[in-house]
Amino acid sequence: MDTQKALYVFREHLERYIVFNEAEWIVFMQHLTFRTLKKKRYFAEPGIVCKDIGFIVKGAVRYYHIKEGEEITGYFSFENEFVSSYKSYLTQSPSLTYIQALEDTELVGISHKDMQLMLNNPMLAYKMERFGRLVAEHYLICYEDRVSSFITKTPEERYLDLLNTGRDILQRMPQHYIAHYLGITPVSLSRIRRRILV
Amino acid sequence: MDTQKALYVFREHLERYIVFNEAEWIVFMQHLTFRTLKKKRYFAEPGIVCKDIGFIVKGAVRYYHIKEGEEITGYFSFENEFVSSYKSYLTQSPSLTYIQALEDTELVGISHKDMQLMLNNPMLAYKMERFGRLVAEHYLICYEDRVSSFITKTPEERYLDLLNTGRDILQRMPQHYIAHYLGITPVSLSRIRRRILV
Repeated sequence: MDTQKALYVFREHLERYIVFNEAEWIVFMQHLTFRTLKKKRYFAEPGIVCKDIGFIVKGAVRYYHIKEGEEITGYFSFENEFVSSYKSYLTQSPSLTYIQALEDTELVGISHKDMQLMLNNPMLAYKMERFGRLVAEHYLICYEDRVSSFITKTPEERYLDLLNTGRDILQRMPQHYIAHYLGITPVSLSRIRRRILV
Repeated sequence: MDTQKALYVFREHLERYIVFNEAEWIVFMQHLTFRTLKKKRYFAEPGIVCKDIGFIVKGAVRYYHIKEGEEITGYFSFENEFVSSYKSYLTQSPSLTYIQALEDTELVGISHKDMQLMLNNPMLAYKMERFGRLVAEHYLICYEDRVSSFITKTPEERYLDLLNTGRDILQRMPQHYIAHYLGITPVSLSRIRRRILV
């Protein structure tokens, strides 16, 4: 995707949160970066400060920890979603999590430094505060959904929720990532998939 | 605690996020409510929209779900912390969780309606957006800590983290609430407590 197209997609998504006029948009754009993260490359790694919040224009990432030598996939983010190791980004402290591209992934990024510049720029400050509030609230709701789905739903219901995101990348994703995300073994996941297909 | 004292404590805490001048504070105060939630009474219940975000001036609450007839305590909030069934409050949809007072609890509240009025009041809008952003980011970090502590820490480490909050109410709290919060059985918790006391 070329930069113009990526910007268009990003702006369209942003307008759910906040509408910039042309003058504001021109200033805002100067604070954005564009990059492609090759499949298997890292957006964030433990021990390193996560400098950016990214918006996924194309592709997908997984969040994982390593526990007793094993990778535990905790979350996925897809196209038209933000991605960051949030605590690390917000507090500029070392990340605790890996965030890895599941396929070649195109991102629009805002560095922590650029975000602070915009929050302190009177022309953008109010809209950036609003943008920051709505994005943080959106992710707060995602976290709450994720935690309550573990408490109140069965693995099968969680799998159906994941399918309902309608992301075709799920077809191409290694099944053990999905199993970990659901908190079950790959064998249990195969059983659920067979049951659903019947 | 009388209302004046409660307001003083609340304002002092708020100033970590945002400083109101006197004129703004007078308007802001008109949007606040005060109440005492008696021990065992509910701040939020499943199926009911959570109308308020509360700030705990005195006391503590626990968040829990019921799973297969059993109460599962997922979180605690103490003095000088905010409390809400956030997704329910933010989206004004029915809560999924119970929030119950662990002892008589005094709260300063902001209803969703009053928050919207302030966000739309030009005098307060910018500061309320900023306040909303910083509170949401704070809770995003708490959620992230909670999720990663389950992945990366032992129950003993999680127990020590909870002790480090320095809340004396932990001494008076039923042990099975604490065990659930740590994701272990009450028997395992007793074992951890004995080990730590040695």
